[in-house]
Amino acid sequence: MQADARRLTGELLGTALLLYVIVGSGIAVERLSTDGAIQLAVHGIAVGAGLGALIAFLGPVSGAHFNPSVSIGLAITRDFSRGAVTPYILAQLLGAATGVILANLSFSEPGAEMSTTVRAGSGLLLAEFVATFVLVLLIVGLVRSGRPTMIPAAGGAGVATIIIATASTGFANPAVTVARMLTDTFTGIDPASVAGFLSAQLVAALAAGVGALWLFPSSSEPATSPVAGAHDRRDSRDP
Amino acid sequence: MQADARRLTGELLGTALLLYVIVGSGIAVERLSTDGAIQLAVHGIAVGAGLGALIAFLGPVSGAHFNPSVSIGLAITRDFSRGAVTPYILAQLLGAATGVILANLSFSEPGAEMSTTVRAGSGLLLAEFVATFVLVLLIVGLVRSGRPTMIPAAGGAGVATIIIATASTGFANPAVTVARMLTDTFTGIDPASVAGFLSAQLVAALAAGVGALWLFPSSSEPATSPVAGAHDRRDSRDP
Amino acid sequence: MQADARRLTGELLGTALLLYVIVGSGIAVERLSTDGAIQLAVHGIAVGAGLGALIAFLGPVSGAHFNPSVSIGLAITRDFSRGAVTPYILAQLLGAATGVILANLSFSEPGAEMSTTVRAGSGLLLAEFVATFVLVLLIVGLVRSGRPTMIPAAGGAGVATIIIATASTGFANPAVTVARMLTDTFTGIDPASVAGFLSAQLVAALAAGVGALWLFPSSSEPATSPVAGAHDRRDSRDP
Amino acid sequence: MQADARRLTGELLGTALLLYVIVGSGIAVERLSTDGAIQLAVHGIAVGAGLGALIAFLGPVSGAHFNPSVSIGLAITRDFSRGAVTPYILAQLLGAATGVILANLSFSEPGAEMSTTVRAGSGLLLAEFVATFVLVLLIVGLVRSGRPTMIPAAGGAGVATIIIATASTGFANPAVTVARMLTDTFTGIDPASVAGFLSAQLVAALAAGVGALWLFPSSSEPATSPVAGAHDRRDSRDP
Repeated sequence: MQADARRLTGELLGTALLLYVIVGSGIAVERLSTDGAIQLAVHGIAVGAGLGALIAFLGPVSGAHFNPSVSIGLAITRDFSRGAVTPYILAQLLGAATGVILANLSFSEPGAEMSTTVRAGSGLLLAEFVATFVLVLLIVGLVRSGRPTMIPAAGGAGVATIIIATASTGFANPAVTVARMLTDTFTGIDPASVAGFLSAQLVAALAAGVGALWLFPSSSEPATSPVAGAHDRRDSRDP
Repeated sequence: MQADARRLTGELLGTALLLYVIVGSGIAVERLSTDGAIQLAVHGIAVGAGLGALIAFLGPVSGAHFNPSVSIGLAITRDFSRGAVTPYILAQLLGAATGVILANLSFSEPGAEMSTTVRAGSGLLLAEFVATFVLVLLIVGLVRSGRPTMIPAAGGAGVATIIIATASTGFANPAVTVARMLTDTFTGIDPASVAGFLSAQLVAALAAGVGALWLFPSSSEPATSPVAGAHDRRDSRDP
Repeated sequence: MQADARRLTGELLGTALLLYVIVGSGIAVERLSTDGAIQLAVHGIAVGAGLGALIAFLGPVSGAHFNPSVSIGLAITRDFSRGAVTPYILAQLLGAATGVILANLSFSEPGAEMSTTVRAGSGLLLAEFVATFVLVLLIVGLVRSGRPTMIPAAGGAGVATIIIATASTGFANPAVTVARMLTDTFTGIDPASVAGFLSAQLVAALAAGVGALWLFPSSSEPATSPVAGAHDRRDSRDP
Repeated sequence: MQADARRLTGELLGTALLLYVIVGSGIAVERLSTDGAIQLAVHGIAVGAGLGALIAFLGPVSGAHFNPSVSIGLAITRDFSRGAVTPYILAQLLGAATGVILANLSFSEPGAEMSTTVRAGSGLLLAEFVATFVLVLLIVGLVRSGRPTMIPAAGGAGVATIIIATASTGFANPAVTVARMLTDTFTGIDPASVAGFLSAQLVAALAAGVGALWLFPSSSEPATSPVAGAHDRRDSRDP
């Protein structure tokens, strides 16, 4: 179907560009500075600003999830078709891997190289849970309260904050987590650390979906803004 | 009452996340940099961006005060139910303490440890008065002039500015001040310094409420934006 | 007149807070860092974010000029009452001096101390001309094209940019220039340098007013947004 | 024609100011810091914020392209008159050169001096392709989905991200690329490197135009916002 191919393309493209920015800004700050707070903040600001821009322009195409946790959270509250979750996640994973490889090549790194950066410990898992819970709750809450035009700014600002202020530097996204195994640079993650992160992120997505049903009990009337387009059109087909 | 439990939950959750960002970003910059301006700016930007995102998504739930001075200021101008001030402040205090403990644990610090950072002197108290006065006046003014959708951006930008530009690093929030006793890291405050800060903040809240009645004499017609929802609904029940 | 006292109070308060942020953030970065780019950027971001927040909440009160060049530019295009220019400028000057003194005291500096920072040379005067011309053109243009709600973000972002990117660090405001003689800290200006800056700023205000009449030939219908309130109400009384 | 002279003036002025900010912020950070990440980030934030402000206020005058790739992309999708592409590009080139010279003089550098900064290699060309493709797709997409008021924030944030996160520091603009030959400072580019950059940028503009036709198949009804004014009025004359 034409419409669906467009949506999946939007989701793939957006997730690829998100990872391009994550990995690219990470390599840039790692090469250019030795001050850890500068590295983290410049990386966080670039990712937050970039994500906000991507949500703004791809929102009407795919809903701009770019994150399996977001797709799952929206499916729990029935603000996104449950049948579309699997193809969305596949598009996100494919896009994410593509983005990492492009960023690596662009900075003359090997296209794909397994990371050796261990990220483990209960503190980091708690951080991933909190970061993912808040991010999903924020997006589902804005969708359900009929204010999708606020998602670019609030989502971008939220992710910049999460990167700077959480102990794990806030991956908060299973597709991002899996793809970041493929770069042995600033933003990489050792494959052995991935399962813990994914578990925390998926539990958080479920908790945020359930929490959103209580905090935002009635889904607002379909928004007229094009940013909400993808969600709303899906909605109307939901059995 | 279901509606009230939701509101208090929103207020508790938002204040907890605000403190999680305040304390977490403080620990991160303290560990990662030795340049004081970088530390302060990265912390301030993270807190401002995070607060903006939190106000955006929790505004329709609780009004997103996260700050006893704001609840008091809005109660003075009758833009918030006076009967709700006490439960709101209790929820804010409980949320704030929870957020500090979560941030401490996430960064492998003791869950709660009394701060030893003395913050005193007439300059700092003057700074706390100015910072709180401006913050409360800004929020009450935007509510009374019918522009609640501007609060996330203006409030977030205002708080980032206050943190960077005021001599006290702009606590400007009694719940934040009390809870920051519980961390002996970058953002902590020695219990002996708390009474002075609280006094300046409460006097400022009263002054801002009175000032807002003069600068913004007529409260605008109930806004239709969902961000103003909590205020407006309260309003209609106000005796 | 009650309404006018309110407007002048808004203008005085806003300009005082603007200078409080300018001088305060300058002292903070000067004390905390030795990296000149960090000092300039953190100062510029704080001033831009703070100005945006001030315009947002005081716009409906006074129009939020906080700058004699802006009042003059708007009077040239008749988007502001010419009779109100002088009282506005007096309120701005009084507010600016008050803000500098409060910031000095808050940081335990002498309340008022003449600056010894010489800022001279044709490059800096060219920079002041360009910075002021653009700032006034931006604000007058947004007013005349009926988009006053964009002024907080665009004005704040514009001023942050001007501070970072112009050779003079973009004073672009006669009231700011005069008041900054009163602090011998990061943002001070030696009295001997002031006349040159003021000349460049006033010529730029005139040029921007004339330029705006050509670039934005028809003033839009009175905006309904409260941010434009002060301009519009003035307008309707303009002979 | 009066209207057309205004539009071309808007385009020339905006592109001149964009280059003034690019080159000026580059000189400032180069002189003030030795930390490469600080230099890059402060430069990127200044350019992004400045571009956002310029698009906001000049959008109703010229459409605020400031970039031949954007004009070409919009012409491909027929959201901009094809006959206006050549005069727009000439205005952009003239404005860009003027802006570089003014910035050089303002910082007491030679008015125009050929850059000796070589920027070459397949990684950088890949980066230029990606950066330009995304930037043009973003702007064309927002125009075609009827959300031109989002362009200032999304375009500014996008460009800041591109500068920080791409290996080439994201020129993404042929007029910018040509004009930056004229300064031997932080942002200069050796004339020998220009042809490669231009090729990548032009191919990307074509790809983005074609991509936008598929991702955003139906151009939205003419937007009522004045930001879209120039596009829409052009549109209605398009054969």
